[in-house]
Amino acid sequence: MSTYKAINLIARPEPGPITPKYFEVVEKDIPKAEPGQLLIKQTHMSLDPAMFGWMSPATDSYIPPVELGSVMRSSGIGEVVESNHPDFAAGDRVMGMLGWQEYALSEGQGINKVQAPLPDETVLSIFALPGLTATQGLFNIGKPKAGETLIVTGAAGSVGSLVGQLAKADGLTVIGVAGSDEKCDWIVNELGFDAAINYKSGNLSEQLDALTPNGIDLFFENTGGPIQNLIFERMNNHGRIVVCGMIADYSKAEPSPGPNWIPLIKKRITVQGFAMPDHFHQVPELLAKLTPYVMEGKIKHRSHILEGLESAIDGLNLFFTGENKGKLIVQL
Amino acid sequence: MSTYKAINLIARPEPGPITPKYFEVVEKDIPKAEPGQLLIKQTHMSLDPAMFGWMSPATDSYIPPVELGSVMRSSGIGEVVESNHPDFAAGDRVMGMLGWQEYALSEGQGINKVQAPLPDETVLSIFALPGLTATQGLFNIGKPKAGETLIVTGAAGSVGSLVGQLAKADGLTVIGVAGSDEKCDWIVNELGFDAAINYKSGNLSEQLDALTPNGIDLFFENTGGPIQNLIFERMNNHGRIVVCGMIADYSKAEPSPGPNWIPLIKKRITVQGFAMPDHFHQVPELLAKLTPYVMEGKIKHRSHILEGLESAIDGLNLFFTGENKGKLIVQL
Repeated sequence: MSTYKAINLIARPEPGPITPKYFEVVEKDIPKAEPGQLLIKQTHMSLDPAMFGWMSPATDSYIPPVELGSVMRSSGIGEVVESNHPDFAAGDRVMGMLGWQEYALSEGQGINKVQAPLPDETVLSIFALPGLTATQGLFNIGKPKAGETLIVTGAAGSVGSLVGQLAKADGLTVIGVAGSDEKCDWIVNELGFDAAINYKSGNLSEQLDALTPNGIDLFFENTGGPIQNLIFERMNNHGRIVVCGMIADYSKAEPSPGPNWIPLIKKRITVQGFAMPDHFHQVPELLAKLTPYVMEGKIKHRSHILEGLESAIDGLNLFFTGENKGKLIVQL
Repeated sequence: MSTYKAINLIARPEPGPITPKYFEVVEKDIPKAEPGQLLIKQTHMSLDPAMFGWMSPATDSYIPPVELGSVMRSSGIGEVVESNHPDFAAGDRVMGMLGWQEYALSEGQGINKVQAPLPDETVLSIFALPGLTATQGLFNIGKPKAGETLIVTGAAGSVGSLVGQLAKADGLTVIGVAGSDEKCDWIVNELGFDAAINYKSGNLSEQLDALTPNGIDLFFENTGGPIQNLIFERMNNHGRIVVCGMIADYSKAEPSPGPNWIPLIKKRITVQGFAMPDHFHQVPELLAKLTPYVMEGKIKHRSHILEGLESAIDGLNLFFTGENKGKLIVQL
């Protein structure tokens, strides 16, 4: 085979589901690695909610958007098949922003060798964007303390499941909010969360009251949606709210209003949004923080594998429907 | 005269204007200072928006509420008329939480001598709660940088007018939001703000667009109200929002919703509420920070003086109507 497939972004998504009309699938000749370049055959690529920001117009996003007509941005893992770059050799296993394509030509920038003897899915699920995001958001922004109560939305998601396990390992009481009984069962019985709330069923106020008798000190927000305000009302004095994702609102033409700010004063609460591109220079220290938890066996994960490059397009909608079970990964 | 007047809080205010039904005016015998005590004749007492918190039920407030049947809490300045306390002597000029009363008996706790050769109104307007609040909120939470754009609501108020002048002295572009043309004129032409917006007139979006061509880096929120969302929309990346007061919402049964949190992520914004009781241990450092600005003549103020103890009750409503011109002070 001397050609490979790539997917370009060709239009900025409107509110609503992601459809093929925003993309074009192209077939290209597999290039040669010129001096200073390496050619990577991608084996697994990661789908992340951050992609909705990358597809949006510049004014709306925290890093430059994907230019229309260019390969859609994504992180991935693969094998160097040809190297004319001094730092890499054929056969190296590497990770980086490889894009929605089967082969990627690179000058080595942002490409890191993967040494850990772990499966590709594990590397992408824990040590890539989700793990970095969970580590930065929980520790550097949320400042958790043993004995506190943390609640995390999107708790069965790639970031939320790590946040909860890291907090649990540090001695917090951890409540997860997820969108199905199956997910709730997984985070409690497999991951060891103290409790879970299925936000689609039952009386949410009553469940929150029962599960957070001492209030909530730390709220790690991955989703938005109606439960946000109910959690906000239960925040303790000096509470911290880490705003990492608002997936329930990304596809809405008119995002829902947030909570009134009076409790921020009365309870001296801090609400802080963050995005990983601000923290890429901290990656070594974030990995140094995260790795011991993984090595001590405190972090479990599961991957939801889609097959083939084109499955990425419709795969993005799983973030909206919440039907993904674990980290979304496209196997090439 | 061997009696004095005091005002007790006897009911928790409902939403709506403050009326005399929440208070009782009592006449008491002027007490003697027992060993360890001092008797203070109060000359001026301060009215502050924080009082609405102090009058509310415990669950709603950041320091213990005023107990029903007790003297209403307030800060004030006065003269020691009799002392049986080793640290104070008759004739000392002192400041502290003296309450709504003409005489206060104290054991010295939280009572500080006033040495500065400044009028009572100036001391209460700059060095009491408003100055401490402005200094803590602006510098320690807002972290202003020269060249940035700051917008402050309640800009002609006791805290807002100081925030704007301190920021201006540090090289920021300062826009004030106030509720009358007279106040806007004062903050621009007397205090030196770069511009002002009367939130009661004109097209607020257009005015904000014209006055903040480079967006807003720092938003010091004293009021809430509809302009909040318009300011929020114009925040820059890495913007900081200091939430100090929400006076427009305190008297509402149903507070208005706040902005959706998506921009907190996209722009990596921090929103932080604070209240001075958390920072009373920092008072010496706050005064050390504030004093040079005052001594260098960079801080102007004006006081709105009410006459007589009972004027405090209806005086609180001036915070809601915005009719006060400068720091509200009751002269006894």
